[in-house]
Amino acid sequence: MSDKDDAPRSRATAEMVAARANVSRVAVSRAFNPHTSLKPEKRELILRIAKELDYTPDRAARALVSGRSHLIAIIVPDVYAHWESQEIDALTTALQHEGFATLLFKTRTDYSMDEQLLATMRGHNPDSVIAFVENVKPSTLARFMGRAVPIYVHYPAPGATDDSVSNPLHDRLNVLQWDGIDQAVALLQGYGARRIAYLSGAPESRANTSRQHTLEEVMARRGLPPPVVVKGDFSYDAAYRATVNFFRVGDGADAVFAVNDVGAFGVIDALRHELGLRVPEDVKVVGFDDIAQSHWKSYNLTTVKFDLDERVNALVRLILRRLNNPAAPGLQETLNTRLIVRGTVG
Amino acid sequence: MSDKDDAPRSRATAEMVAARANVSRVAVSRAFNPHTSLKPEKRELILRIAKELDYTPDRAARALVSGRSHLIAIIVPDVYAHWESQEIDALTTALQHEGFATLLFKTRTDYSMDEQLLATMRGHNPDSVIAFVENVKPSTLARFMGRAVPIYVHYPAPGATDDSVSNPLHDRLNVLQWDGIDQAVALLQGYGARRIAYLSGAPESRANTSRQHTLEEVMARRGLPPPVVVKGDFSYDAAYRATVNFFRVGDGADAVFAVNDVGAFGVIDALRHELGLRVPEDVKVVGFDDIAQSHWKSYNLTTVKFDLDERVNALVRLILRRLNNPAAPGLQETLNTRLIVRGTVG
Repeated sequence: MSDKDDAPRSRATAEMVAARANVSRVAVSRAFNPHTSLKPEKRELILRIAKELDYTPDRAARALVSGRSHLIAIIVPDVYAHWESQEIDALTTALQHEGFATLLFKTRTDYSMDEQLLATMRGHNPDSVIAFVENVKPSTLARFMGRAVPIYVHYPAPGATDDSVSNPLHDRLNVLQWDGIDQAVALLQGYGARRIAYLSGAPESRANTSRQHTLEEVMARRGLPPPVVVKGDFSYDAAYRATVNFFRVGDGADAVFAVNDVGAFGVIDALRHELGLRVPEDVKVVGFDDIAQSHWKSYNLTTVKFDLDERVNALVRLILRRLNNPAAPGLQETLNTRLIVRGTVG
Repeated sequence: MSDKDDAPRSRATAEMVAARANVSRVAVSRAFNPHTSLKPEKRELILRIAKELDYTPDRAARALVSGRSHLIAIIVPDVYAHWESQEIDALTTALQHEGFATLLFKTRTDYSMDEQLLATMRGHNPDSVIAFVENVKPSTLARFMGRAVPIYVHYPAPGATDDSVSNPLHDRLNVLQWDGIDQAVALLQGYGARRIAYLSGAPESRANTSRQHTLEEVMARRGLPPPVVVKGDFSYDAAYRATVNFFRVGDGADAVFAVNDVGAFGVIDALRHELGLRVPEDVKVVGFDDIAQSHWKSYNLTTVKFDLDERVNALVRLILRRLNNPAAPGLQETLNTRLIVRGTVG
């Protein structure tokens, strides 16, 4: 193809492709849908002629006929948070390989979702919706969905009953936090830490509360006093300020377990650059996520990891399984966590 | 509205809304399009009844009629890069306010774009396409667009002729780098730096080459020897390794001007944690972007900033201006840069 054209061409139609290939209009449609059966040589011929004529099927028109939009909506509180941006990036790459495009929607800052925006989302008729925020209720989302089944990321708390039966239809990715957090506390104990503080995320986040409950349960089983909660909001700046206050005004601690890596960076910088304390000699720090920045030499953070590739693969599997079986009861995938040991405990 | 429904409802239709409101089907369409005129009380009535009936217009159906999809495609090399993720986040928020949803597409790692993916993009019929990579040629993009006019982010080099006349139709956001880079070099000179190295980005990136040419021109005009180029690729890890090599094997420098902030972090960590050099006493460092991490205490980076809000506003203006005037010749918006002084020069 040449790069010399100076203006957009008018579009070729499916009828033009069908005529040139001497096949039916239906065969042209089928050729562009990898999930339909068609003789390989016939599909090849149609796709070659479509390319010559510069024809591509119009997704809006196809969506009306097939009921599929090839759009996957993702609802996030923010795109720039380090973990989220890495996940959206990997997910978009994986979805492109499956023929889907990513449609982004942002929640309000309190993690709730504008109903007008949910209506807009439904208007685009996505094939699936991934909700990274648990604050948009499945029942609300279902009301706005039409036919897509939302996928939720769950952080089951230890001993919590499975509420999938009583819940309206949705699929879920379960992230088990116990193993990684237990390994982190064991390591801290092994290096003599007893008073462990928890730097929290925003209180509206269920990921935060479930992480805190798991930590409390792990510490109780290990005979440790409950963690003192230092209030953060997932950001570096809040973590920095809260740490300065906690060590200047409060009792301090032997170690800080942070709800996320970015918060842990704020804790480390406050300890070193404002409080004159050494990490790990005076205070040990553990994070959660293992984002790419965690291995940067200024932080070199010991942290709890859940694997990004595994997570993205599990989400794509949930989408494809659901599209193959629209009426199946709630589908699930489960991932585990583990400790990555670096330089902030020891 | 209640949250108790356990299953998606079947959709209300525009006809149902029209009947209940005692208006025409056309009036219902107009009520949902803010750009059409309709008596305020009539629009209010229709929207109220639509809400009661839980009706939302189907975008796919509307797109076929109106020719507008309310989708804005964004082509990026990666979502997780710090500057890009902050820009996509702010842009998605701004676009949501205007009634558009963001559709994400990723390039190959060499910044080129899979033609199959461009065809998919065209199939979704976006109202506009923002290309953050200059490597997808405007003429290629135009061929795949149908009706949308792509927006490119340009970094005009000093003295370069304006090629907008000879180029096929596209709109552009010009980012002028001269002022910020000149301020950075003046500050470095003022603190006695003479041998200034340039940590580069990936060689395929035109943003990288135009930044380098601007720096060379600024340094020449200020009577400085040309910068030695230390090869990076925008990443922390490449910057770290290249800096260690350059100071261990090569001649070293009084200062390093990094193509982006993340590269500057790699330079700083290599100098401090691997080479035992002090920043800024032994080596001064300047970055480019002013991402949120630049004020973190471990780095506290002096850097060249272009304002995110201004940039997002300019992009949204370009989109709206183009939709109001599809046949206008190439539209432009222009932004400037300036130096943010922190602790890595002085």
